[in-house]
Amino acid sequence: RGIRVGYTPDVLTDATAELSVALLLSVCRRLPEAAEQVKGGGWTTWKPLWMCGYGLSNSTVGIIGLGRIGQAVARRLKPFGVKKFLYTGSGPKPEGAAEFGAEFVPLTRLAEESDFVVVTCALTPATQGMCNKDFFSRMKKTSVFVNTSRGAVVNQEDLYDALAQGQIAAAGLDVTTPEPLPTNHPLLSLKNCVILPHIGSATYATRNTMAVLAANNLLAGLRGEPMPHELQL
Amino acid sequence: RGIRVGYTPDVLTDATAELSVALLLSVCRRLPEAAEQVKGGGWTTWKPLWMCGYGLSNSTVGIIGLGRIGQAVARRLKPFGVKKFLYTGSGPKPEGAAEFGAEFVPLTRLAEESDFVVVTCALTPATQGMCNKDFFSRMKKTSVFVNTSRGAVVNQEDLYDALAQGQIAAAGLDVTTPEPLPTNHPLLSLKNCVILPHIGSATYATRNTMAVLAANNLLAGLRGEPMPHELQL
Repeated sequence: RGIRVGYTPDVLTDATAELSVALLLSVCRRLPEAAEQVKGGGWTTWKPLWMCGYGLSNSTVGIIGLGRIGQAVARRLKPFGVKKFLYTGSGPKPEGAAEFGAEFVPLTRLAEESDFVVVTCALTPATQGMCNKDFFSRMKKTSVFVNTSRGAVVNQEDLYDALAQGQIAAAGLDVTTPEPLPTNHPLLSLKNCVILPHIGSATYATRNTMAVLAANNLLAGLRGEPMPHELQL
Repeated sequence: RGIRVGYTPDVLTDATAELSVALLLSVCRRLPEAAEQVKGGGWTTWKPLWMCGYGLSNSTVGIIGLGRIGQAVARRLKPFGVKKFLYTGSGPKPEGAAEFGAEFVPLTRLAEESDFVVVTCALTPATQGMCNKDFFSRMKKTSVFVNTSRGAVVNQEDLYDALAQGQIAAAGLDVTTPEPLPTNHPLLSLKNCVILPHIGSATYATRNTMAVLAANNLLAGLRGEPMPHELQL
């Protein structure tokens, strides 16, 4: 009560979308596993299907939550030859949907038809645990799942089962429950799961912009002036 | 003499461009290192600059060899907010240069002005060893170098020195000299170097397309008919 709060809106959209694409491509093309093979001596003679992954050309990409970050992800993925974007989510039709020819579908259809699923929605009571056993069981065996939103959108036990049993091909998570994830978590034992330490906004440029915005909010607050970005309660 | 040779042209452009972007993003945003931190317990509390990397927003990207694959890389990188594309290479002005507003510059200026350098040229007497001590010494300390063409374009001893001494920030290689690279090679000891086992074309779709083309060439040859793709000597 009476405490003014500044924040730093919108500054991490580009960095987080970039990280989402980086993680998706790394998982699709098995980069961490391939780099380990080089270090461990697994790289020998050429074999037709060794270390093969799934490409984005002619694929269907499903985006859960086509907000600012989801749209920035779609914009970056489009020139990779994506054939079709599907999306789901609550709220009004996103302005960007037309730009990508993205089609709104129910969550079940998104799971069934997507080659790649990217989760970029907010964590709400409606999205908590949304990616669960039923969701993964509808996905294709060759599909890849990526979450860069919030860990609790995913039921991690169900994701582990889906990955271990080959119900889906692979997953990439930049967010987990809890954070940090304990180093003995079962998901960390899987070759087809890449887990990052919540680095969506971790670029020098983004963190510097955040710091400058925070400092300017603080200085304005100390002077009793309106903050450049002040939370309206 | 008298032996007809079939080949499989153009089929790997998309897969290789995709892998080039995957590797660039992985190196820029330090994905393999970050994933190791999760497994090893290095992920603890939030720290402002921990695991920060370099984003593509407002960057200058230099492409050595703006041929089919180089253009496909530029097309994919453009929506990441790249400010300026530079390129160098021999031969006629690429048709795609105008699409990206790419500017032709000498190799030295490309090294000096690029935040990210991607090598997608052919290996020729002119390009062998082209990325050497002089080249790396002109690059920015914050710059990232990626090679997905042929290993011999790079002087690996000079690249090692540049990475170990902090003359450049990081590197990603999908190709090396020799291949496979010995597991005790000094480059494999560096945290800021990601090496992949030549997986540019390694997607199931691409390898299947290559196999079908090769089989059709072979069948046509056995029947004494013109091959769909026959090398004209």
